Amino acid sequence: MDNIVIDFKKEKPLYLQLVEIIKHRVVENSWHQGMKIPSENEMAKEFGLSVGTVKKALGVLVQEGVLFRRQGQGTFISTPDFSKSFLRFFRFGMTGGKPSEVPGSRILKLKVVKAGKKIADVLNLAPDDKIYHMKRVRTLQNTPFAVEELYLSYTRFKGIDQVALEDQLLYPIYSEQFATPVVWADEFMQPDISDQETNELLGVDKITPVICVERIAYSYGDLPVEYRQSACIGDNFKYHIVIR
Amino acid sequence: MDNIVIDFKKEKPLYLQLVEIIKHRVVENSWHQGMKIPSENEMAKEFGLSVGTVKKALGVLVQEGVLFRRQGQGTFISTPDFSKSFLRFFRFGMTGGKPSEVPGSRILKLKVVKAGKKIADVLNLAPDDKIYHMKRVRTLQNTPFAVEELYLSYTRFKGIDQVALEDQLLYPIYSEQFATPVVWADEFMQPDISDQETNELLGVDKITPVICVERIAYSYGDLPVEYRQSACIGDNFKYHIVIR
Repeated sequence: MDNIVIDFKKEKPLYLQLVEIIKHRVVENSWHQGMKIPSENEMAKEFGLSVGTVKKALGVLVQEGVLFRRQGQGTFISTPDFSKSFLRFFRFGMTGGKPSEVPGSRILKLKVVKAGKKIADVLNLAPDDKIYHMKRVRTLQNTPFAVEELYLSYTRFKGIDQVALEDQLLYPIYSEQFATPVVWADEFMQPDISDQETNELLGVDKITPVICVERIAYSYGDLPVEYRQSACIGDNFKYHIVIR
Repeated sequence: MDNIVIDFKKEKPLYLQLVEIIKHRVVENSWHQGMKIPSENEMAKEFGLSVGTVKKALGVLVQEGVLFRRQGQGTFISTPDFSKSFLRFFRFGMTGGKPSEVPGSRILKLKVVKAGKKIADVLNLAPDDKIYHMKRVRTLQNTPFAVEELYLSYTRFKGIDQVALEDQLLYPIYSEQFATPVVWADEFMQPDISDQETNELLGVDKITPVICVERIAYSYGDLPVEYRQSACIGDNFKYHIVIR
């Protein structure tokens, strides 16, 4: 547990100090995503603050999306709802609607390269900054359904090439080992036709419709921490919405 | 204006009679989609009912999605939110984000045919029932962006082939001329590669990624009234979501 405390002599308002402490706990993962946080009374007692000050701090954090309230149940650390993700829909298509199955991953490449202009722009880096470039094949029931290229800041994720990533979900690793929880993401989807390398990795014929999903994943403070491009087989894919 | 009134001698509960009257007004389009309806007091007076009975009827209609309440503003006839539609997103892609522009339509075909098994299943008809089959090209700034095939029940839309449909939106016509407002829709999206006829109509080269959007549009009582399949050019298309 971190030992940042409220400094009553500081000029910074007490509620903003509490905001910082709570954010720090989330980033350090001592308070993990989805967790219910202590009640306002408990926190007031722990930090020696009035309940009003705690309320004010929580209000700011709800506004920022760090926390959310569930009627009659308490206040929780937000966790992004990836059930909306385009990538998730591919899996539904593949498994006939079993959302619970975690896809497998085969890492094809993970190396340190220069960001270059395009990736640097997305990740808020300089073109000469180093990044990790990862390429992997995602599978379900050992059948490939997507080829992914991922780009990560080298300084933030230094040493991730020493972590066992095969068949692992990355966001828990970002959060637990690199103090970088993903709190929201932008996704873009576009139809395309696969190139030859992708075809070979996906084990499909020449002219195949694919869906390209780009995702920019952000941590607190709207900091972009991961950029990924996924080419997913279109055949089994049906995206469904209800318009009301 | 229709002249259905509350029958105080009927066994049917008064609030359910009012539910029927209001639905009838919507279907007959004397109360049109998006319109604010009279206050509970005004309706109680008009129909000779207690405010409690009116409240109960409105509650049912809100539950069914016929009406919705806007805090402090009143109760309105629901209108489906087609801003979520996949088809709408294509238009954004084409116009660089101008959602206001209404697309043009060139009718290629509109004829009466037998439904057949597939369309009959979707539209809740018998395979031998007659339907209208319409084919049209949608355009923006005179550039084709989609080819659409539409299927409509013949009995419900009898005479629609006599209506001027070129460059018209269909749902206002369904609502105003055929007493069939569209109140919700199911959409499915799938990537594909266009066939030759579609290519020619869209004026594109041979191997082109397209997005196929299927829509089943429903009127009150979850009645399917229109089935459409749209093949949209993928090039300019980027669908965006934010995951929080």
